[in-house]
Amino acid sequence: MRYELYYWPSIQGRGEFIRLALEDAGADYVDVARRPRGMATMMRFLERRSVKHPPFAPPFLKAGKLVIAQTANILFYLGPRLDRVAKNEPSRLWAHQLQLTVADWVSEVHDTHHPIAGSLYYEDQKGEAKRCAADFMANRLPKFFDYFEQILKRNPKGSEYLLGKKVSYVDLSLFQMIEGLRYAFPRTMARLEPQHPRLAALHDRVMARPRIAAYLSSPRRLAFNEQGIFRHYPELEEG
Amino acid sequence: MRYELYYWPSIQGRGEFIRLALEDAGADYVDVARRPRGMATMMRFLERRSVKHPPFAPPFLKAGKLVIAQTANILFYLGPRLDRVAKNEPSRLWAHQLQLTVADWVSEVHDTHHPIAGSLYYEDQKGEAKRCAADFMANRLPKFFDYFEQILKRNPKGSEYLLGKKVSYVDLSLFQMIEGLRYAFPRTMARLEPQHPRLAALHDRVMARPRIAAYLSSPRRLAFNEQGIFRHYPELEEG
Repeated sequence: MRYELYYWPSIQGRGEFIRLALEDAGADYVDVARRPRGMATMMRFLERRSVKHPPFAPPFLKAGKLVIAQTANILFYLGPRLDRVAKNEPSRLWAHQLQLTVADWVSEVHDTHHPIAGSLYYEDQKGEAKRCAADFMANRLPKFFDYFEQILKRNPKGSEYLLGKKVSYVDLSLFQMIEGLRYAFPRTMARLEPQHPRLAALHDRVMARPRIAAYLSSPRRLAFNEQGIFRHYPELEEG
Repeated sequence: MRYELYYWPSIQGRGEFIRLALEDAGADYVDVARRPRGMATMMRFLERRSVKHPPFAPPFLKAGKLVIAQTANILFYLGPRLDRVAKNEPSRLWAHQLQLTVADWVSEVHDTHHPIAGSLYYEDQKGEAKRCAADFMANRLPKFFDYFEQILKRNPKGSEYLLGKKVSYVDLSLFQMIEGLRYAFPRTMARLEPQHPRLAALHDRVMARPRIAAYLSSPRRLAFNEQGIFRHYPELEEG
């Protein structure tokens, strides 16, 4: 099956969590909006009134006749098909629960630079962003870090991965969180990471996976930038 | 099976979406934290280091040996068991996709009164809340309304419910969204609802369901208040 991924072509954004799963599994997929005229194809699909199950927003995935939206939902569907989660229901629910916690975390990261409205420029909510980012770094970031460090610690099959003994799509997503947060908040991360050794080790373990390493050094991996979720605005990290 | 729901005992909050599904199905469940000493039971569970699959936050559900967190994940699990979604995978994924869109909407509603930080009082972010709420009502609320109205319109089995011909847990959640938004933003809703007749009709259809009607008039239904997601602060609806 050739999967078709639809997502904004100029940012990693939420689509990156899906790209990482497809890439790590060596899946056959097309990143539709990054092809010539692909953006127009995506927009036309979103506006077509005849689509029975329309997405609210990208990313969405076409898999045969299925159209699936919402990042965590797409990963829930792909997980067992890409062998990036065990096939039994308790494992799938547990992985999904963790992925939804990552999704909440992603939203909070996004809000650090856009606390008032996605429709406004960063520059028009910079003061509010400073307050929001300060609270995020003081209270929320440590809470998420402590939580996922605990999950690694409590895994009865060892602390190499979040679930069992094998890599799952949630591990790939946590790698992406750490990469993004290092880009956005380097000084805060330099302080937090040593207190969370299992997470830092997970990051390195994922990055060393051959297909992930190949992907990261390919032109398919977009660079972080100031249009995505993880943005580096030095003023947000000050005091 | 007797389900155990764990959620903050003094608010509807995210737990309400689960309560509505359990109530509509006439399921056997206990709302643990609302029983005597139940809050202490919940907090002890959250702090116990031996829990293998700890929730990041309430709500969570115990179903036999399973502990499941994240509202949409709990509903994904309960849906087919309570006969509140069809059992085939495409239907379950579609319902879940819609529920995750409701979850995003819920977060945005929460942010209208807490745009800077959940750890700060409303009074300490009132100015920012006014800006955030104004954008929410001008841009986001109409977008969510238009989207779900379209879903009802495009349902090939008729516009009575979101999926197929039978009520699903997503319909119950949309009822709750409309109830909550009427409480929080009555003037805006009075303007928006007539343009979305299918949603308003869905709300009434759900409210008239015998078990839902019985629940709403029982002491089990908590009143809206200014600690939950939907809060009525008149100043947020002005200009």
